[in-house]
Amino acid sequence: MSVIGSPTDSRLLPLGRLEAFSDGVFAIAITLLVIELHVPTGQEGLVAGLEHEWPRYLGYLVSFAFIGGVWMAHSNLTSFIRAMDARLMRLNLLLLLFVSLLPFTTAVVATHLFTSFRAFDHASHLTLGAERLAVVIFGLNLTLAALMIYLVIRHASRTEGIPVDDVAEGELRSFSAERRLATWLQGAATLLGALLPFVAVLFYLSVSIFFIAEPFRLTLRRAARR
Amino acid sequence: MSVIGSPTDSRLLPLGRLEAFSDGVFAIAITLLVIELHVPTGQEGLVAGLEHEWPRYLGYLVSFAFIGGVWMAHSNLTSFIRAMDARLMRLNLLLLLFVSLLPFTTAVVATHLFTSFRAFDHASHLTLGAERLAVVIFGLNLTLAALMIYLVIRHASRTEGIPVDDVAEGELRSFSAERRLATWLQGAATLLGALLPFVAVLFYLSVSIFFIAEPFRLTLRRAARR
Amino acid sequence: MSVIGSPTDSRLLPLGRLEAFSDGVFAIAITLLVIELHVPTGQEGLVAGLEHEWPRYLGYLVSFAFIGGVWMAHSNLTSFIRAMDARLMRLNLLLLLFVSLLPFTTAVVATHLFTSFRAFDHASHLTLGAERLAVVIFGLNLTLAALMIYLVIRHASRTEGIPVDDVAEGELRSFSAERRLATWLQGAATLLGALLPFVAVLFYLSVSIFFIAEPFRLTLRRAARR
Amino acid sequence: MSVIGSPTDSRLLPLGRLEAFSDGVFAIAITLLVIELHVPTGQEGLVAGLEHEWPRYLGYLVSFAFIGGVWMAHSNLTSFIRAMDARLMRLNLLLLLFVSLLPFTTAVVATHLFTSFRAFDHASHLTLGAERLAVVIFGLNLTLAALMIYLVIRHASRTEGIPVDDVAEGELRSFSAERRLATWLQGAATLLGALLPFVAVLFYLSVSIFFIAEPFRLTLRRAARR
Repeated sequence: MSVIGSPTDSRLLPLGRLEAFSDGVFAIAITLLVIELHVPTGQEGLVAGLEHEWPRYLGYLVSFAFIGGVWMAHSNLTSFIRAMDARLMRLNLLLLLFVSLLPFTTAVVATHLFTSFRAFDHASHLTLGAERLAVVIFGLNLTLAALMIYLVIRHASRTEGIPVDDVAEGELRSFSAERRLATWLQGAATLLGALLPFVAVLFYLSVSIFFIAEPFRLTLRRAARR
Repeated sequence: MSVIGSPTDSRLLPLGRLEAFSDGVFAIAITLLVIELHVPTGQEGLVAGLEHEWPRYLGYLVSFAFIGGVWMAHSNLTSFIRAMDARLMRLNLLLLLFVSLLPFTTAVVATHLFTSFRAFDHASHLTLGAERLAVVIFGLNLTLAALMIYLVIRHASRTEGIPVDDVAEGELRSFSAERRLATWLQGAATLLGALLPFVAVLFYLSVSIFFIAEPFRLTLRRAARR
Repeated sequence: MSVIGSPTDSRLLPLGRLEAFSDGVFAIAITLLVIELHVPTGQEGLVAGLEHEWPRYLGYLVSFAFIGGVWMAHSNLTSFIRAMDARLMRLNLLLLLFVSLLPFTTAVVATHLFTSFRAFDHASHLTLGAERLAVVIFGLNLTLAALMIYLVIRHASRTEGIPVDDVAEGELRSFSAERRLATWLQGAATLLGALLPFVAVLFYLSVSIFFIAEPFRLTLRRAARR
Repeated sequence: MSVIGSPTDSRLLPLGRLEAFSDGVFAIAITLLVIELHVPTGQEGLVAGLEHEWPRYLGYLVSFAFIGGVWMAHSNLTSFIRAMDARLMRLNLLLLLFVSLLPFTTAVVATHLFTSFRAFDHASHLTLGAERLAVVIFGLNLTLAALMIYLVIRHASRTEGIPVDDVAEGELRSFSAERRLATWLQGAATLLGALLPFVAVLFYLSVSIFFIAEPFRLTLRRAARR
């Protein structure tokens, strides 16, 4: 694990640490989401409390599916490459920045989704703005994370010495194209969030679940070709 | 770690990332449980406070034993297989979803267990309902996690190219049968939770400790046969 | 990593998952300690607040040094062994239980150390009891964790097929004897906690720092012999 | 992973556990930072709340960039070495102590930065002191962590048997010299914090981002030479 991967190219570093650190951040971010789920106390009644908390459960699901999908893409990526360079390390660090911010922006959207219909009717124009802003902030975070995993894959596909072989390079190029599409979809959903906040969150969830189904289509295609 | 495991079958991916990410989530979920243990402050007295908190300690024990048992099964599984496919990755992600939810549902049961005997006697019919509901929610979470580890093992045992060899395939089939039984046991305990909440939690604990003893019976049997 | 380590003995499993899961729990427990450090707010003054919080910093140091020492012993252990069996997995799970409880018992001692001199002078006999109880609970946790790392090492040293070779077996036996001594020292310090709580916490810290210096004495001795 | 790295020198231990444990602590500390970001509630308005919280976002960025940079230096280091000794393990543990303290000192600076201009104008001489003290505490933590990664690299470069080969030893020596400079820069920025707190935090951020760009200059230089 601590041996320079490719002696012919000293710009390149072995992958082991990048995989371990990224797996750590993905695992912690996906598990920390649970901290934002509040336990209803006895006084308000457990049933009423759980009903009241459903925007948190929705936000939890979106972020869990999203991080799970990004992790799958990331782990699919590292099975196609054999080394990293400094730029891949830095792009990956930016990806981890946006992934580790998700527990916060998930909490923002969970706190403000449908507050307009719940407690602040006397100031509905104000809190409606808060709801839209919260959904847009959450969507921006998802879009930036989707953008970074796309840029990481694109950089890996274009840099000599990083893909395992020529076949892997071709796979990474089509993988990269699919992730570009996914970034556009998430960006469009975020714009929708400024108009129809609740519909946008459902759209975030759909895109995230699509992310989980996505990374293997190319693998299956490759399998079919052989 | 980043080399395609089996060149003869391009549907398959190497195991390293799945192991690292799963170990991360298991380790974080099992350690995050401690966050729900509250420190009694001086004013109510430490002894009284610790006595008052015992449902939390019971819930902590159940979830620690359960996650420990699932981790042991998972790590036993990966010693019998040599690769994964996309479906195993997705089933595993669902397993991790239910494992990472456990700190939350443990807190739900810890907050509501025996509340009926403590503070809300004037509304005992209400909080009794809350206690039962909490125990059932906790039990459902445990059952779904038990179901997912069973489905992961079943899928691994039935998919060509995943088991290390024919002997491992046979072991995985009987391992899978034992986990099916465990899932039924946990499901039955959850039903019991709607009638006798406290007894059910003790039953959860017994099943969890049985899970820890379980995964090695087959290993021992195999050892005896040789 | 997913290949059965020793084909001649089917009771044994490879070490990779045990190392990864244990490293995860150690890393999380040692980092979660920081959550118990409270930030003094502006109203009481930062200097006064930091002075007021020193029992937390002391508790933090004790637990950080203790977990660091146990991790060093654990990682020294796995460099002497080549496989594990089911009992080692279970003993290790008990070790992780007591390690992951430490952020809680550290918070208990940090909350109650010197409360008798601070805020509850009107009930000093009560809170003095709380202080002693807190120090004893913390000490018990440390003692049980020290006991488990001793039992893990002892089991590894005595089980055929687990040590790398005969030399490693001998090293593990003397390592095990040193850990037994360390457990006795920590147990004695805990008894002292019932009489002189503050002195005992300083003693806990000394034993923990000794744990960090300890695991390598035998390595150095072995080096000198060659 | 559990095989003694170098049979010719029994003082040395394999690197696997050190890498896994360090990656765990780095990943958790960098992800725990998010816990200190508070979600503004509806009553004060989301926009006003987010504006009010900007010192937290600044502190978050500084610590994220700093930990990211230290991780990159650490993972660059382990690609140049093949084993560790007891002292490297202990120096590394001290590094992890200061890294895992960062979520706390980041919260200290985030709470007290610009409090003097916000809420306590009637006691500005007091809180101005708090702001400066907070910035200095944060800077000290960063300086001590920078010092430890420097000492870890220096020790690795000077100890026989630890660098992979003579070329790696030379690289480690110049890497070590660059980290010494970085420690001096961070220390100077901390002194500045006692005079111009806000400027110092911006300086911390610049040094941290420089840390991320830094570790690869030598790698690139080496590449150019070939």
